[in-house]
Amino acid sequence: MKIYIHTKFEASEVSVIKEQLAGKYEVLIGEEILPENREEQFLSADICFGNVPLAWAKQTSKLQWLQLHSAGLDPYQQLENHTFQLTNLKGFFGTSVAETAVAGILAMYRGVGHLAKLQTESKWIGTPLRSSLHLLSNAKVLVLGAGAIGQKVKDLLVGFNCETTVLDSKTVVNLDEYLPTTDILVATLPETPETIGLLNKTRLQMLKPSALFVNVGRGSAVDEIALIELLQQNKIYGAVLDVTAKEPIPENHVLWQMPNVLLTQHTSGGWAEENLDKIKFFIENLARFEKGKALINIANLARGY
Amino acid sequence: MKIYIHTKFEASEVSVIKEQLAGKYEVLIGEEILPENREEQFLSADICFGNVPLAWAKQTSKLQWLQLHSAGLDPYQQLENHTFQLTNLKGFFGTSVAETAVAGILAMYRGVGHLAKLQTESKWIGTPLRSSLHLLSNAKVLVLGAGAIGQKVKDLLVGFNCETTVLDSKTVVNLDEYLPTTDILVATLPETPETIGLLNKTRLQMLKPSALFVNVGRGSAVDEIALIELLQQNKIYGAVLDVTAKEPIPENHVLWQMPNVLLTQHTSGGWAEENLDKIKFFIENLARFEKGKALINIANLARGY
Repeated sequence: MKIYIHTKFEASEVSVIKEQLAGKYEVLIGEEILPENREEQFLSADICFGNVPLAWAKQTSKLQWLQLHSAGLDPYQQLENHTFQLTNLKGFFGTSVAETAVAGILAMYRGVGHLAKLQTESKWIGTPLRSSLHLLSNAKVLVLGAGAIGQKVKDLLVGFNCETTVLDSKTVVNLDEYLPTTDILVATLPETPETIGLLNKTRLQMLKPSALFVNVGRGSAVDEIALIELLQQNKIYGAVLDVTAKEPIPENHVLWQMPNVLLTQHTSGGWAEENLDKIKFFIENLARFEKGKALINIANLARGY
Repeated sequence: MKIYIHTKFEASEVSVIKEQLAGKYEVLIGEEILPENREEQFLSADICFGNVPLAWAKQTSKLQWLQLHSAGLDPYQQLENHTFQLTNLKGFFGTSVAETAVAGILAMYRGVGHLAKLQTESKWIGTPLRSSLHLLSNAKVLVLGAGAIGQKVKDLLVGFNCETTVLDSKTVVNLDEYLPTTDILVATLPETPETIGLLNKTRLQMLKPSALFVNVGRGSAVDEIALIELLQQNKIYGAVLDVTAKEPIPENHVLWQMPNVLLTQHTSGGWAEENLDKIKFFIENLARFEKGKALINIANLARGY
């Protein structure tokens, strides 16, 4: 059986894959193949690890299983009548993303972004900064999305005695009743027809001027133009955005220079051992595939995650 | 009875003091008195709130009680045979300081300092940053100092499943056995003869190259020259320094431009409602003073906190 590895790994990570699989499988490493020959090699594979172009995935008739290296399914919702199994990394990024969410909240509240900027200027302000800081402890937190990320955000905040409410895909329709009293709104929503534009201007306007908005889900959940307007008018205290409407954010975009915004550049899902842990996940799922057992994380294209 | 308010408060905060005390006491607000007349006014006061110059405190014979606005006692350890009661704000800053400690740890691990710098440059790096990030979850944390700050650091980390050890003034002598396996070393030590230079070069060298050092206690606890050397040689992963040997840090100091250092400029004790909460504490202690009850937070000059 042929396994095609599409994900771009470091040499040391490729070695791990080869060591573990080379005896049993023909392992094709995309990065080691000339770009113009990759599609052909993919089309000859039985198993693929990595987010190949949608067009390739639509074309294959041989593939039995495609393991994505992402939790998101975009653009594979557009697959129709595919005959291979499709699995994703749902849940894999929960801790990492939730940690960036809390890091962002604390950075805003404890002035870390501002302090980092002052540091580049070798500029001491000290004591006068203190009155601009805030405490996370005892804050009222509303988490949208009850998946791995949302649950983990709640868990991480336990020591801060926050009053944390997590709304899942069913209860999220009630969010309006929570918005006016929320100190920190954390969106961890996947992109689905129900979540696109959920945080529209009307809803954002229901937030307190002291409210902090955090988006570690998908940029499409929020009306970004309305958000920027409210931030510029200080009708919302601040925003931590791991995801935005456009990524990369264009160089001349207004978001870059907004003092009450922290941009984490869609890095929240990452950590040093991320790739090795992905490879570990794939190999564990492969063991299930070999035994004919149900794969972990079979994607639900209708739900979108 | 005369109360002299030495602490510099905002007008709105002074109003709160006056509203609550003016009926019962003669309230002297230092900031409303010409600088050259302040000492004289202080010397006529029965009660003082705020950290007056040591020389004034040495000279008063009338003062019955000095409520400091700090947790630290420096330079009042140098008082001798003072006849007034001396109280401080021990414990008052615990949550705030601990939150900055955790904010700093997460900022280092989740790349927030670097991201904030990139933001000032409108520069997107995105995915390549991910492999430089780390997870706080499950880290081995060693906290030096079991006061309000140290205990709170441990509490805040509960949701992160960290293995946190807190060493108090008695057990801190055993720190050497913990250093080689510590991921994050958090110093929350007050300045005492025992803590000055505790983290000497030998001890810092026992830390792993991946170790993160956080100092939210006093700068004197660490050999700063050795720390800088180890950071420059990447023999320690990074440092979050709220306190340093010299404050303000001189403009040409090497610490400013070190990429693996986050300087929080001794702001950790601050939050927007800090002064109002201090005033509340003073007025509560004043109620005890009026009733002849033991004051809260009587300073122990021999212990140094």
